Amino acid sequence: MNLDTFPAYATLTSLGTSPEDLSAPGTLTPERIASYVCRTGEFDLLYGTERINDQVLEGLQALANEMNLTEQLNAMKLGAVMNTIAGCESENRRVLHTSCRDVFHTSPEAPDATQENKDELAKLQVFLEELQNGKLVNHAGKPFTTMVQIGIGGSDLGPRAIANALAAYGLEQRRIHFISNIDPDDAATVLQDIDLATTLINVVSKSGTTLETLSNEELTRQEYLKQGLDPSKHFISVTGKGSPKDNPESYLRSFYMFDYIGGRFSATSMVGGVVLGFLLGFAQFMDFLHGAAEMDRNGEQKNIRENIPLLMALLGVWNRNFLHLESTAILPYSQALLRFTAHLQQCDMESNGKSISRQGKPLTYQTGPVIWGEPGTNGQHAFYQHLHQGTSTTHVEFIGFRKNQRKQDITTQDTSSQDKLCANLLAQSLALATGQTSDNPNRTFPGNKPNLILMADKLTPYTMGALLSLYETKIVYQGFIWNINSFDQEGVQLGKKLATDILDHLKKVKSDPDFSGQKDDPQGWAILKSARLV
Amino acid sequence: MNLDTFPAYATLTSLGTSPEDLSAPGTLTPERIASYVCRTGEFDLLYGTERINDQVLEGLQALANEMNLTEQLNAMKLGAVMNTIAGCESENRRVLHTSCRDVFHTSPEAPDATQENKDELAKLQVFLEELQNGKLVNHAGKPFTTMVQIGIGGSDLGPRAIANALAAYGLEQRRIHFISNIDPDDAATVLQDIDLATTLINVVSKSGTTLETLSNEELTRQEYLKQGLDPSKHFISVTGKGSPKDNPESYLRSFYMFDYIGGRFSATSMVGGVVLGFLLGFAQFMDFLHGAAEMDRNGEQKNIRENIPLLMALLGVWNRNFLHLESTAILPYSQALLRFTAHLQQCDMESNGKSISRQGKPLTYQTGPVIWGEPGTNGQHAFYQHLHQGTSTTHVEFIGFRKNQRKQDITTQDTSSQDKLCANLLAQSLALATGQTSDNPNRTFPGNKPNLILMADKLTPYTMGALLSLYETKIVYQGFIWNINSFDQEGVQLGKKLATDILDHLKKVKSDPDFSGQKDDPQGWAILKSARLV
Repeated sequence: MNLDTFPAYATLTSLGTSPEDLSAPGTLTPERIASYVCRTGEFDLLYGTERINDQVLEGLQALANEMNLTEQLNAMKLGAVMNTIAGCESENRRVLHTSCRDVFHTSPEAPDATQENKDELAKLQVFLEELQNGKLVNHAGKPFTTMVQIGIGGSDLGPRAIANALAAYGLEQRRIHFISNIDPDDAATVLQDIDLATTLINVVSKSGTTLETLSNEELTRQEYLKQGLDPSKHFISVTGKGSPKDNPESYLRSFYMFDYIGGRFSATSMVGGVVLGFLLGFAQFMDFLHGAAEMDRNGEQKNIRENIPLLMALLGVWNRNFLHLESTAILPYSQALLRFTAHLQQCDMESNGKSISRQGKPLTYQTGPVIWGEPGTNGQHAFYQHLHQGTSTTHVEFIGFRKNQRKQDITTQDTSSQDKLCANLLAQSLALATGQTSDNPNRTFPGNKPNLILMADKLTPYTMGALLSLYETKIVYQGFIWNINSFDQEGVQLGKKLATDILDHLKKVKSDPDFSGQKDDPQGWAILKSARLV
Repeated sequence: MNLDTFPAYATLTSLGTSPEDLSAPGTLTPERIASYVCRTGEFDLLYGTERINDQVLEGLQALANEMNLTEQLNAMKLGAVMNTIAGCESENRRVLHTSCRDVFHTSPEAPDATQENKDELAKLQVFLEELQNGKLVNHAGKPFTTMVQIGIGGSDLGPRAIANALAAYGLEQRRIHFISNIDPDDAATVLQDIDLATTLINVVSKSGTTLETLSNEELTRQEYLKQGLDPSKHFISVTGKGSPKDNPESYLRSFYMFDYIGGRFSATSMVGGVVLGFLLGFAQFMDFLHGAAEMDRNGEQKNIRENIPLLMALLGVWNRNFLHLESTAILPYSQALLRFTAHLQQCDMESNGKSISRQGKPLTYQTGPVIWGEPGTNGQHAFYQHLHQGTSTTHVEFIGFRKNQRKQDITTQDTSSQDKLCANLLAQSLALATGQTSDNPNRTFPGNKPNLILMADKLTPYTMGALLSLYETKIVYQGFIWNINSFDQEGVQLGKKLATDILDHLKKVKSDPDFSGQKDDPQGWAILKSARLV
């Protein structure tokens, strides 16, 4: 049933007409800041700087109860077919990315899926041990020191963001790179800087038919052949069982991904596992899974004030549907999380950028916002001007850590850089909320800009796993609230089809310079000509 | 005078109530696509996929005329004090970033400023020659092969984005890196991978007092000392004349930036010049300036259909103020432009995220949108779902090139990767505009999503300069239209002030564990405690 049919929706709509004014004197009291905190596992969520009060929280709790949100999440984890739209042709699949990390309990929630993932983990462990103990080496007996992952979308953004986040924990002498874009310069840039002889190429594609990945694999194989190296001794794959890439003649090893794991939710499957295991070693990869598994369990709490993913989902819906904000900025105060927002942009916008209900009917309310952001403090010197004094309001989610990852830090003016980083994060949250009056209109800050803070002790493999699960679960909960199927992506099909048509024109004009595609596809032909590509 | 006081505003408001429906059969004709093209220098702008018609273009032209937009731009280039707000304390400066590249004409528009910039270019040329011919080497007589730029905001994002874009043209054996974030892990990550002995550290700060840059400089100097190296033989600076960093005892060389060049508009000054010159050599850096200079002149055309920067500015305002769109995605189909959108996000949002007129009065209409984006085709596998089937509409600006930069490309299924890249770009533009009907509601695309395409032959230093100028001028024009001061950034001050207060608390609690800051700053203290930082 649609969000707007529940009793709590009416209550929240009414509360949304006169939300808390954070800039009003006396609103943002120390008591308020101390009271609106949720501590779950590794993370503290500070949400006193949201435009909420106890009544709104009661309304959000009522909404969660009325919609059976935690029950829906549990059904998903147990293997319900949730990737579906009633009455329409659709993917009709289970949604079990959580099974990838539900490997620490004696009674997992979806035993068959967890067993399949455990089998892959066992294969990964053997593979990593063989790399470590010298059993798996190149033709000259040298160890493989570099891995290049070729994949796009879910096979790229999550693993890349997490590898970046955890680079400080990388094994000595291991280096990893990614190739994703069909732009041939992407592959060329990566390949020019590495020694192919000591490199493993990990090709990641569930179907084994992704255009970009096939082209980049072929380009890379040709580079191997040019250098007199045998690709089948360097290429491995992560793919569906029985796909064209599940072939021992072409791949040294193949690891499997399953149809119940969507690309954008696949970072804890072998899609992330192989490359992160190569970088971090098996034990640290398991720490990462462990962090995710623990946060998965925390996400099952019925009390929204004890469940960060659920509370964040509801606060997002409050800002989107009741305060009518169009975008959410995710701003990590950690340079290691440079690419994490890009991953979440994918995970969130591809999941919840939808306008059809799970019953196949057009929706009459807003669904997922635009997600964007860059790390602080860098962003403070870039787009924060817009957050503070622009004419539209962006909802902000800050992420911070009390300690830094590496040993170096420096004290200037009696405080460390890490202290300065954290102080800036907290200050921005307050500044957005309270604003400032001034005689100079250009130095006036309206304030009343809602935001929240996620805080943990340190960005480690375990914390990273928890943070990933937290956002995945938030996104899943929001899909339930908006009554959409968060697990398909039909919106990518039309562009693919039109690209094929336009490529056909290009092919024909190359073989016959007199060819005019005007009749077949007048729009495609006109745009090709106007762009001077033919 | 405010935008909404001009006659053309009323005309456009009326036209905005029934804009062109791109998804209606018969709207997006080949003739329309061919007719709405503007060719300026290196770039073609295709805008048939915007929700405009001839009437709207006439309205936008009328607006440009009524507001004297090109006259305002010329006044800026001649040295008018445009960084100001009437009746308020403000920066009161000229705005002359264009003078940095107005070095190819015998009669520059602002001769004194151009002369100052020519003097810096001459210093840069000598410096680069000395690096090349071995006159400037390290203590052991070895050449400097690496440069690390320490800077943040405008001293980071533009130079970094451009260096990334032009890496394919880099001199052999020259490597560059950037350190920006106060997060100490940022510096540690960069410094661990380089040989300090053959590295130049370029510290970039106009005032010489930027917190992040000072801390990172100090951290880096200590690393030099730890390794027994003399920092004064490795550190150079780009700074204001007479700043603390203009000091030959601490810096091998100093290059100057001037108060009439804002940080986010400084990529063509020495802020970009030193690091780009090191990477590309002097001649290619001059090509980059030349491309910018030519586009600067193109941006002066009065006829909006012959002036890409002005037309893009007006189309942006059409989408923002008359069609009420909240965000603009800038999507380059070029992996080399990976960080260009982040630079534009800064340049645009810090310039035009304002709500006070140039007369110091609150505005009653929307100003700059949220700017975001990632390269295609990667984005197609990430957030394009939201663009096609989400509930809110994002304005899209595509950027593409007919040829790739590097030699490698590959033909699969009879087309090259570069062909596929371009075909995808054009297909996405059409798909967003036309949409698609279907019996399956989940496979229905509403279409009618406005977008434009910027197309050039190849991303070279010259084209990159033109592209940068194009966007800088677009942003400046939009500021004129919204009647805001695009050149200050008062919105960053409040966060800085509160961060200082919070840091003071941290300092005190470190020297006195019983200290409670409750009295001094109850909010700051409460948030510090809730985040468990004290």
